[in-house]
Amino acid sequence: MTNQTDFHMTPDQFRYWGKKIVDWIADYHERVEQFPVLSTVKPGQIRAALPAHPPEHGEDFGQILQDVERVVLPGITHWQSPNFFAFFPANVSGPAILGELLSAGLGVQGMLWATSPACTELETHVLDWVVEMLELPDKFKSTGPGGGVIQDSASSAALCALLAARERISGFKCTRAGLTGGLVAYASSQAHSSIEKAVGIAGLGRDNLRIIDVDDKYAMRPEALADAIRRDKASGLTPCFVCATVGTTSSNAIDPLPEVGRICRDANLWLHVDGAMAGTAAVCPEYRWIHAGLEFADSYCFNPHKWMFTNFDCDCFFVADRTTLIRALTIMPEYLRNPASLSGAVTDYRDWQVPLGRRFRALKLWFVIRHYGVDGLRHHVRNHIQWASEFAQWVRSDPDFELVVPPPLNLVCFRHRAGDEFNQRLLQAINETGRVYLTHTRLSDRYTLRFCVGQTHTQRHHVERAWHLIRETASALHMNA
Amino acid sequence: MTNQTDFHMTPDQFRYWGKKIVDWIADYHERVEQFPVLSTVKPGQIRAALPAHPPEHGEDFGQILQDVERVVLPGITHWQSPNFFAFFPANVSGPAILGELLSAGLGVQGMLWATSPACTELETHVLDWVVEMLELPDKFKSTGPGGGVIQDSASSAALCALLAARERISGFKCTRAGLTGGLVAYASSQAHSSIEKAVGIAGLGRDNLRIIDVDDKYAMRPEALADAIRRDKASGLTPCFVCATVGTTSSNAIDPLPEVGRICRDANLWLHVDGAMAGTAAVCPEYRWIHAGLEFADSYCFNPHKWMFTNFDCDCFFVADRTTLIRALTIMPEYLRNPASLSGAVTDYRDWQVPLGRRFRALKLWFVIRHYGVDGLRHHVRNHIQWASEFAQWVRSDPDFELVVPPPLNLVCFRHRAGDEFNQRLLQAINETGRVYLTHTRLSDRYTLRFCVGQTHTQRHHVERAWHLIRETASALHMNA
Repeated sequence: MTNQTDFHMTPDQFRYWGKKIVDWIADYHERVEQFPVLSTVKPGQIRAALPAHPPEHGEDFGQILQDVERVVLPGITHWQSPNFFAFFPANVSGPAILGELLSAGLGVQGMLWATSPACTELETHVLDWVVEMLELPDKFKSTGPGGGVIQDSASSAALCALLAARERISGFKCTRAGLTGGLVAYASSQAHSSIEKAVGIAGLGRDNLRIIDVDDKYAMRPEALADAIRRDKASGLTPCFVCATVGTTSSNAIDPLPEVGRICRDANLWLHVDGAMAGTAAVCPEYRWIHAGLEFADSYCFNPHKWMFTNFDCDCFFVADRTTLIRALTIMPEYLRNPASLSGAVTDYRDWQVPLGRRFRALKLWFVIRHYGVDGLRHHVRNHIQWASEFAQWVRSDPDFELVVPPPLNLVCFRHRAGDEFNQRLLQAINETGRVYLTHTRLSDRYTLRFCVGQTHTQRHHVERAWHLIRETASALHMNA
Repeated sequence: MTNQTDFHMTPDQFRYWGKKIVDWIADYHERVEQFPVLSTVKPGQIRAALPAHPPEHGEDFGQILQDVERVVLPGITHWQSPNFFAFFPANVSGPAILGELLSAGLGVQGMLWATSPACTELETHVLDWVVEMLELPDKFKSTGPGGGVIQDSASSAALCALLAARERISGFKCTRAGLTGGLVAYASSQAHSSIEKAVGIAGLGRDNLRIIDVDDKYAMRPEALADAIRRDKASGLTPCFVCATVGTTSSNAIDPLPEVGRICRDANLWLHVDGAMAGTAAVCPEYRWIHAGLEFADSYCFNPHKWMFTNFDCDCFFVADRTTLIRALTIMPEYLRNPASLSGAVTDYRDWQVPLGRRFRALKLWFVIRHYGVDGLRHHVRNHIQWASEFAQWVRSDPDFELVVPPPLNLVCFRHRAGDEFNQRLLQAINETGRVYLTHTRLSDRYTLRFCVGQTHTQRHHVERAWHLIRETASALHMNA
C-alpha cells in the first residue's frame, strides 16, 4: 500500500479501531440483556442529540465510537437479545458477522461473473448446498435449467418471481410492450404484505391480487383458489401468478402445496412459494413435511437471515427455469460486455435481481454452514421448536389464556381470555417492562399475541421467564381493572 | 449472555477470529497490488475447489479462513486495488468497513421506526447533512415535504422514482388498478441500463422508454426530448417520467438539467436525476455546476458507494414530495401496526423502498463523513479529478491516441488511432498484464477505452504508471502486428 496519510484511516488505525469494535460487539452481545428490548426513546430524540451540520473537519474515531454508545445505543431495539420474541427473528451469529466483515473488507461487486468470479461461484455453490440441506426439489439446483441466487429479502424474491411469471404468460410481451390490464395474481388472506406490494410494483395493480380465503388453521383453501381462477377466466382475465406460503407471518400457517400446486399446474400458473421464516425448519428431516408439494413450484424462497443465524440480508431464491427470470431482467449495455459473459459459460447474477450491483453475501452463509455444520443448525431449530411447544403447553394449561392455533413450528399465537382491548393493553404493558419484546396480529379479526422463538441466544429459561412475565403482567392488569 | 456452547461461536472465539479478520483485511489492502487486478480464474474453477456437499459437522474457523485465502482470493477481481480504473469505482474505506462491521454486530432491522429508532433517525439526519454537503436543493431535506433515504443502488432508486411518477400521473390508479398501457418514459441514449430495466419492471414496457438523442458531448438534446413528448402526446399517449443523468456511465456526460427541467415542469413530468457516480463531486464548490437545474427535479440520487469511500450498498435517494413515493409503496398489515407508526410522528422507511427489511446502513456513511470531514472528502475528489485531467493531457499529447471527449470530471474516454479491432485487443492485453484493470464502452459506435480515477488508494503514480503501461502495451501490439 502507498501513502496512507491525507485523511485516510491508516492501516494501524484500522487494526486498532477494528479490534476495538470486535470487542465492543462481543461485549454488546454479553450485556444485551441489560437494555430494554424495545427502545424507549421518543420520536426525534436521536436526531436532537446529533449536530445539525456535517463536520467540516475529520473527527477522532474514538469520539465517533463514544457517540455510538451515547447516542445510537439508546435508540436500538435489540433484535439480538435472547428476549426478543417479536415479528420473526432476524438472528445473527459470530460466523455471519465475520462473513459480513470480510465481505466489507474485500469490497467487491458481484454484478458480473468477471467482476469477481468467486462471488458468483461461491453463491451458486452454497445455494446448491442449501437445496441438499433442506432436501428441496433437485430442479432448484444450478446443475439443471434452474438455480439459486441470494436476494436481499423475500419481498424482492416475490417481486422477481412475479416478473418472471408475467414474462412467461405473455412471452416477451410484458417486459417489452408493457402491461395492458387483465393479469391476475392470487395469495391467501394470510400471505405476506410484500405480495400485495409486488403486485403493485409490477403494474398488475393491487386490486388484481385475489385474496383467497383460509381454513380454520389459516391455510389457503384450495377450492377457493380454484373458484377464483375459474371466475377470472370466465371474465376474460388472465390468471398469472399464485403465491403460497409455508409459515405465514401471522400464525405460521402452511398452505397445502400439493393441492395448490396441482391447480397451478393444470391452469399453467406460476407458483411461487414463500417460506421466508419456516423454510429453515427443513434442515431437520422430521420437519420436511412443510415442503410437501414443492415439486409443483416454479420458484421458492426462504431467509437464512431470519432463522439460520445469517445476518440480514440473505434470502435464498430458487427458480426451476432461470431462462424466464433472466429474460425478464436482463440488460446488456456495451459497458458491461465482457468475454466471459459473451462465452455463455458463466452466470451473471445482475440478471437475477432488480439492482445491478451486489455485495459478496455468500461469504456469510458459507461461514455459517461451515461453522455450525448441518447438525449444529438442526440442534438449534429443534430446541426452538421444542421450547415454542412447551410455551404453547403452558398457555393451554392456563385457564386465563387460550391458544389460537396449535403452533406448527416456533411461533405461538395466543391471547388472554379477557378480550381484545385487554390483550392490547397487556402487550403494551409487557413490552414496557423492557424485559421482553412481543408483537401482535389479528386472527379471525381478534387481537392475538405472537411469541416467536428463534433468536440465536434464546435459551429455555428465557422462554420460561417470558411466560411468567406475561402471566404476572396480566394478573397485575386484572387487579388494577 | 447465557450458555455459549452448543455449536455457537463463543465470545472468546469471536474476539479471536474477529481480530484475525481485521488484520487480514489490513494486510489485504497492503498487499492488494501483488494480485492481478482482474481475476484470472477460469469459469468453474472456484466451484471445483469446493466440496460437493455441505458439511454435516461444524468445521474449525481457522480452516475456513485458510479456504478464503486458498479458494476465494484467486477468484477476486480487486475493486480495492489502486490500479482499478474499470467501470465506476466501488471504493471502500476504513471507517466504512468498520461501520459495516458495527451494523452487522448490532443486527437490527430498520423497517419501522420502532424496530430501531436510531436506524431511521440517523439515516434521515445524515441524508439532511448530505443535502448541505452537496448543496442540493433544500426541498430534498426531511424538514419539508421531501426527504432522503438510503437505497441499495441507483437501480432501485430509479425504480422507486418511476413508481412514484406512475402514481402521480394517475392518482392512486396505477398501483391499485394496474397499468393499461399508454405511459411513456424518457432517457437519453447514454442513460444507465437500469432505467430500461426499471421501465420493464414497472410494467410500462421497455418499448415505451423513448431513447432521446444526444449532442456531441453525449448529453441529452432537450429539443429532441421536447419533440418526443410532443409526438407521444399527439398519439394519445401519456408522458410520465424523464431520467436525466449527471455523469453518464459511458462518458460522464452531464445532461442539461435547466432545459430538461423546464420541459418536464411545463409538461408536468416527473424528473428523476441520476448522479450515481458524479454526484460526489459536488462536495467541492467548484464542481457544483454539475447540479445546476436540479431545482426542477422531483427526485435525485447519487452513490456514496461509488466515489465517497462508503461501502456498497449506499445510494442516497431524495424526493421533493415523499407522500407520493410512500403512497406507491405503502403497506400496513396488522402485524406491523405499532403506536409510533400510528401516531404519524415518525418515518417508517419500509414505505420508501421495495424490500421490507433494511440494514443499518447509515452507520457507515456517518462514520465516513465524520472521519474524513467535508474537507477530507474534497481533498480526494480534487486529486482524482486532477489526475484524470493529467491523464487526459497525456492522451492529447500522444499522436497514437485520441481523447474522445474532454473529461468533465474523473473519467477519461480515449482510444488508440488504430481502430476498433486494435483497441479491443489493446484492452485485453492491458488487462492480461494484471497490473491494471480498465473497461470499455462504445461512443458514436466506436470502441472506446474508459479510465476512471476514484479508488480510495489510487495515487498520482498509479495513474502515471497505468498510462505508461497502456502506451507500452500498444507499442508492443503494433510491433507484433
